[in-house]
Amino acid sequence: MIKGNMLIGQSGGPTSVINASVVGAITEGMNNPNIEKIYGAINGVAGVLSEDFYDFSNETKEDLEILKITPGAALGSVRFYLPDFTSLASASNDYHKLALVFKKYNIRYFYYIGGNDSMDTCNKIARYLKLIDYEAYVIGIPKTIDNDLAVTDHTPGYGSAIKYVATTLSQIYLDTNSYKEGRVTVVEIMGRDAGWLTAGAKLACLNGCEPDLIYLPECAFDVDTFLKDVARIYEEKRKVLVAVGEGIRTKDGEYILKYRHFKSADSFGHLQLGGVAQVLCEIVGEHLHLPVRSIELNLPQRCSSYILSKADVDEAFEVGRHAVIYSTKGITDKMVIMKRVNNIIEYDITEITNVAKLIKQVPTNFINEEQNHITDEFIEYALPLIQGEIQIPFENGVPKVYRLKR
Amino acid sequence: MIKGNMLIGQSGGPTSVINASVVGAITEGMNNPNIEKIYGAINGVAGVLSEDFYDFSNETKEDLEILKITPGAALGSVRFYLPDFTSLASASNDYHKLALVFKKYNIRYFYYIGGNDSMDTCNKIARYLKLIDYEAYVIGIPKTIDNDLAVTDHTPGYGSAIKYVATTLSQIYLDTNSYKEGRVTVVEIMGRDAGWLTAGAKLACLNGCEPDLIYLPECAFDVDTFLKDVARIYEEKRKVLVAVGEGIRTKDGEYILKYRHFKSADSFGHLQLGGVAQVLCEIVGEHLHLPVRSIELNLPQRCSSYILSKADVDEAFEVGRHAVIYSTKGITDKMVIMKRVNNIIEYDITEITNVAKLIKQVPTNFINEEQNHITDEFIEYALPLIQGEIQIPFENGVPKVYRLKR
Repeated sequence: MIKGNMLIGQSGGPTSVINASVVGAITEGMNNPNIEKIYGAINGVAGVLSEDFYDFSNETKEDLEILKITPGAALGSVRFYLPDFTSLASASNDYHKLALVFKKYNIRYFYYIGGNDSMDTCNKIARYLKLIDYEAYVIGIPKTIDNDLAVTDHTPGYGSAIKYVATTLSQIYLDTNSYKEGRVTVVEIMGRDAGWLTAGAKLACLNGCEPDLIYLPECAFDVDTFLKDVARIYEEKRKVLVAVGEGIRTKDGEYILKYRHFKSADSFGHLQLGGVAQVLCEIVGEHLHLPVRSIELNLPQRCSSYILSKADVDEAFEVGRHAVIYSTKGITDKMVIMKRVNNIIEYDITEITNVAKLIKQVPTNFINEEQNHITDEFIEYALPLIQGEIQIPFENGVPKVYRLKR
Repeated sequence: MIKGNMLIGQSGGPTSVINASVVGAITEGMNNPNIEKIYGAINGVAGVLSEDFYDFSNETKEDLEILKITPGAALGSVRFYLPDFTSLASASNDYHKLALVFKKYNIRYFYYIGGNDSMDTCNKIARYLKLIDYEAYVIGIPKTIDNDLAVTDHTPGYGSAIKYVATTLSQIYLDTNSYKEGRVTVVEIMGRDAGWLTAGAKLACLNGCEPDLIYLPECAFDVDTFLKDVARIYEEKRKVLVAVGEGIRTKDGEYILKYRHFKSADSFGHLQLGGVAQVLCEIVGEHLHLPVRSIELNLPQRCSSYILSKADVDEAFEVGRHAVIYSTKGITDKMVIMKRVNNIIEYDITEITNVAKLIKQVPTNFINEEQNHITDEFIEYALPLIQGEIQIPFENGVPKVYRLKR
């Protein structure tokens, strides 16, 4: 294999374990005879284009231990859209610039941590480098709390996120259960058009604190049925706990967001979601005249390092490590995946094009017939992903965090 | 001292450590020769009136260990207003009923865990029992994440809440810092008309993740100055992190909530706050045309048992224990307080009337001159309150929680 330098970048929304994948790749890179220098790209592809690199050679073992459990993309992330091309002539200047930088820094191994949009970017870079005959090995490292990547059994980041969702739901349950005459509490969970993260609310049943109703974006949301469900449960229990995915839509495909003041889109053209819980509370207030409270779990779902799943941290580390292993065996334009074999996770690869731009939704056998709750089959799927805890180190009463030394 | 049964109740909004005070009182009650049976009142005063009691004699040591760190009011809480009286004749039927129940169950020691409204209830009960010459010892146990109780150095529940606020703020900082071109992120913190909890956002400086701006309800909020501050910081850093108390008002005393659809009041007539962050985001969007994100920390501030301050849990236990100690020395109609003597917490008592219905606000020396940040003097005050962590036990990937055995 060719000897050269490695470059790793982070892209898209961060997760609590996105840095564990960086540490996995660095750890393998340090021991791999084909890899010389280890660079991080600041803000993903943007940092490649501007030659904004971080040299990881001064990191101590303790630095890497803290980095592993520090939330947020430590190298900086980006939402950067590389336009498609069909030939060298049709490729934009960004590709030309990118290849020059790869040559200048002798980058032969490139890793990109991200979701389905970032995998598209990764695939385009691999294809371009092949087109100009520059020998480099490009591997995608999966990452998203949304768990919506195809092929892989699940994604790093998802396990910690549902552990956070389940734990927080169970604590909200205990809090709201303090009152005899309670409210209709609607908890809004991220995940865009996929309900994987929202399904995680089901796991609060594991300590007896299950929500009453769970609505996923995979099912058409019917306001009348929702109101009937809420009224029935309130009548019986004098309080209702509802978990709802931010991306739920009516059967006509409309997001339940008509009351929202602000709507904005990111550079991939995705609508920024959020606000559904509040809208549902307004509907319940208006039609059922019951007391309500909306709670958006919001960013802590992807940055709560104090409630990490050990299984998830270990897997995030391993997908990073395996990216380096595969690339130095001459594999390129692939993404690392996890397979479940006899309930043990094994690592493998898939064509990036099997993943890029695709969304994997929650299968119907994980959703109950009334489409307002989650089945036990989901628990079986999700349980291994939330196993184990990590005691993060505190100093002065707050968690220790890693910051780049620059 | 008279021998008899003890009764303990919980009132008002729960905290992460409200049950630790119950365990402190039970623990002392089990060892105290004057105390025979130990009852819990279900849903506070409401449970007293309906004779809905829980007998704690079947709890194991392990039950109590789990109860200590379970969030939510395990006995159930209540917002119940007892009308005032000036003579036996003017006291409402509720008092008469309450006294009958005390006699029937031979309740001689009564403890009520709550904030300033609950202390008012506690005082009224103590006064009524004195008026009818029924020998009973009534002690208030302070509790509120708002830290707005007079006389006591701080309140149990506050330390864990600001540890949660500081940790969550630092994680949101790391997450939002992932992007070069970021947003104006406004984080809304509870605390009603007192800024104690919001001031806790300052503690994120302890790991280098301090918010840019912090606004407390104690200072008149000026929209123009706010917009200037935000614009200046965004110009420099391309992202702004703002912490804001839910109860901020303009100099005319108006809450910054004019855009909100729903407003509801609890049985004490307090307006239910919340929604300020969203309003500020709308103002920033409209006037500065910057990308925004609002985050309400919401209920997890008072029920996140996975980020408890050990100091706080220990103190909550101790105020419960001391309530029993004081009462069995013949003291009544008092509230337990904490005093800071040479940086060590000592326990003492105060007249409930020194506390009931009063609000302690953040002193001016904790707020900077521009009234948009917090001073180092606050850090000195708050630092001891967030020291130490508690590893809560997990089972099946979620925290173990205590539930009453009924």
